Amino acid sequence: MKNNIDLNEMGLCQMLRAIEEGVCTTEALIDACFDRIEARESDVGAWQIKRTRDEYLAYYQANKAFFDASLLKGLPLGVKDIIDTQEMPTEMGSPIHVGRQPVEDATCVALIRAAGGIVLGKTVTTEFAYFKPGKTKNPADLERTPGGSSSGSAAAIADNMVPMALGSQTAASVIRPAAYCGAIGYVGSRGEFSLRGGQPLAQSLDSLGLFARHVEDIQFLRAILLRQPVSIAENKSVAPKCVMVCHGDSVGETSSAMKDATEKALQLLKSQGVKVIELDAGNRIKDMVNHHVNIMAWEVCRNLAIESFQKNQLSDPLAALMEQGLNMDRSTYIESLQAAQACQEWLWRHAPEADVILAPAASDIAPLGHGATGAPHMSRPWQAMGLPVINVPGMTDENAVPLGLQLVGKYREDDALLGHAGWLKELLN
Amino acid sequence: MKNNIDLNEMGLCQMLRAIEEGVCTTEALIDACFDRIEARESDVGAWQIKRTRDEYLAYYQANKAFFDASLLKGLPLGVKDIIDTQEMPTEMGSPIHVGRQPVEDATCVALIRAAGGIVLGKTVTTEFAYFKPGKTKNPADLERTPGGSSSGSAAAIADNMVPMALGSQTAASVIRPAAYCGAIGYVGSRGEFSLRGGQPLAQSLDSLGLFARHVEDIQFLRAILLRQPVSIAENKSVAPKCVMVCHGDSVGETSSAMKDATEKALQLLKSQGVKVIELDAGNRIKDMVNHHVNIMAWEVCRNLAIESFQKNQLSDPLAALMEQGLNMDRSTYIESLQAAQACQEWLWRHAPEADVILAPAASDIAPLGHGATGAPHMSRPWQAMGLPVINVPGMTDENAVPLGLQLVGKYREDDALLGHAGWLKELLN
Repeated sequence: MKNNIDLNEMGLCQMLRAIEEGVCTTEALIDACFDRIEARESDVGAWQIKRTRDEYLAYYQANKAFFDASLLKGLPLGVKDIIDTQEMPTEMGSPIHVGRQPVEDATCVALIRAAGGIVLGKTVTTEFAYFKPGKTKNPADLERTPGGSSSGSAAAIADNMVPMALGSQTAASVIRPAAYCGAIGYVGSRGEFSLRGGQPLAQSLDSLGLFARHVEDIQFLRAILLRQPVSIAENKSVAPKCVMVCHGDSVGETSSAMKDATEKALQLLKSQGVKVIELDAGNRIKDMVNHHVNIMAWEVCRNLAIESFQKNQLSDPLAALMEQGLNMDRSTYIESLQAAQACQEWLWRHAPEADVILAPAASDIAPLGHGATGAPHMSRPWQAMGLPVINVPGMTDENAVPLGLQLVGKYREDDALLGHAGWLKELLN
Repeated sequence: MKNNIDLNEMGLCQMLRAIEEGVCTTEALIDACFDRIEARESDVGAWQIKRTRDEYLAYYQANKAFFDASLLKGLPLGVKDIIDTQEMPTEMGSPIHVGRQPVEDATCVALIRAAGGIVLGKTVTTEFAYFKPGKTKNPADLERTPGGSSSGSAAAIADNMVPMALGSQTAASVIRPAAYCGAIGYVGSRGEFSLRGGQPLAQSLDSLGLFARHVEDIQFLRAILLRQPVSIAENKSVAPKCVMVCHGDSVGETSSAMKDATEKALQLLKSQGVKVIELDAGNRIKDMVNHHVNIMAWEVCRNLAIESFQKNQLSDPLAALMEQGLNMDRSTYIESLQAAQACQEWLWRHAPEADVILAPAASDIAPLGHGATGAPHMSRPWQAMGLPVINVPGMTDENAVPLGLQLVGKYREDDALLGHAGWLKELLN
């Protein structure tokens, strides 16, 4: 095995390079992924529905010439079960949509399939990408929640079941599970990717998410989704000149383990000659948490109108969120939208020299138990502002449970963000 | 008949008041709509697919108690065939999607159905809501184009076939057909309505559209879509204090008939004591036309990825737009997005006292012929800025062919816009 890791543990681009260099075959990589899934799925529960190994290999063999000539070579993809797939149901974690079979692939799925990816299966989502957990457990510690809502995608990546997975974030649905499980999770700037076929929760907040084990894999997949030139060779890491730090206390409650991790990262940055400035935002960021909730409540009960008419099939938290949105004055919603826009503009006026913001990706390690998915407040402000974000794994608490740090980029400067994230990940590992 | 008009010519709220007051029955109104469709559809061609009278009445009778107790009483709705419907195919004006049957209603359809509207049928759209025309002719002059892309919805409303119809606008797809046919067409602020189940063209530009014959009907439908309290009684017209005028020359080529119409409207406004100020924007608005094209080209080839892989099934103009988007530098796209945002902010800083902007809704009356849908440039700037817009009919050329004027509102101040539009429509009629 290359670098003493099992085949299935390689990152996407590592796998592609191994195929290109003749180190191993695509079939061997596919087999290694299925070996891992067979060994671990009964514990982890990342998958809502999936192809069997035989089905997958038959599909691959039937189109082998296409896959061999493709960018992604027929490697497996996990797709959050809120994203439509033509060949598998999309049930959104809800009894309302059991067996629901979409007419066509979501655009993100279609683009990855056209580039030679194969949908291995649909990954577990919380109910409508909100709070009610599915069956997934945290692969880093099965007693803990994987976080939500992209629970299955984060777990499948962290547990080395597949090298790439799709998710979505409206509040904290990519960053939090990535932080809890120890995966890379990237959320694009608002509007960056086509959301066609991704079932919406809140139009002013929804973003597509990508999960992988290396930043270069995220860069590769991003290029495919944007129909841009791709390369598996280039090292695209870039050291930031200046990082603005948002301590957890600026957002809400944060554990001492997370405070220590943030502080340790700061010292590491300084040791590399990176200028570190503090985000001194008063209550601005904290206020964004409530503004985010307002925007989400208003929009969810209107986007999910069909489901809101079947209230007895909804979880209590989702029904309560809808109720909040239906009872809200429109002026409250509009004020929250305006506040989010104003805060986004203020942020980078406040510190124009900062390349990125460093912040805790969650308030703590993943909580024990599987009845809830943990607190989302650390993500709400950035998501309200529509900024690109990435969880950079590497830190842990004293028991080796993952602690996530997130980098937040300027609006639509996703490429710069990913470059800095690649550099930070190397620094933390 | 009330006010000496046929039943089918009434506006939506007029119909609802007539039912409430016992002036006529819902069945009589439904019959009048079908009478009109049977008399005119072979000429106008507004419908892609529709229920027969018998099917409609059977559906109505089977759920009569629900409809009698509902807001919309079972009155008929036209739905642009780019918007998903559970009970009818959604073919998007393309051979690629013939017979395509969505799993569920778009949210806008679901909300109107839940309020007691019945989908009479799907209205003709151009290919994927872009340029290639469908079969629809302009009911005001069958030799002319109805405009696009919401061709069938505009024609069905203007020809009194139904009292309400749904459309969408990415460039000029609501305002232009409304102007050409002589209907009211309203485009919501970007992000205002759920677009779930409306097939996207360009995520930074797409807006939901509503067609009706009276502004109060638009206000009524808007409240239903936003799950807000509704009323059929209240007069919601509000005179503006100050109107900013954008002459057609600030945007692009404009006919003398349209110049005369704009001038005439200005004089009418002044005669009512409304302050009129000129929009002196230099090249800002004109530049927005190209920025809009850039944004659209970049996003269309990514949203319609699935279809782009079947190029031989696409019209030449759509294939060319996709090619433009695929060959574009991302920096061009981002600069155009930033320019649109900056221009939106500039507009109202420039004239804070202006309640609304008055501008030509199209460059001229509807052109002769059915091979194209007319020029979209008069709408591109406002759509790039995400502003709410409404076409106010009432003006015509010397041959009684409709000339549309549009009112443009401040971002997210759609209610104020509609109040002023109601007032202007009364003034022009």
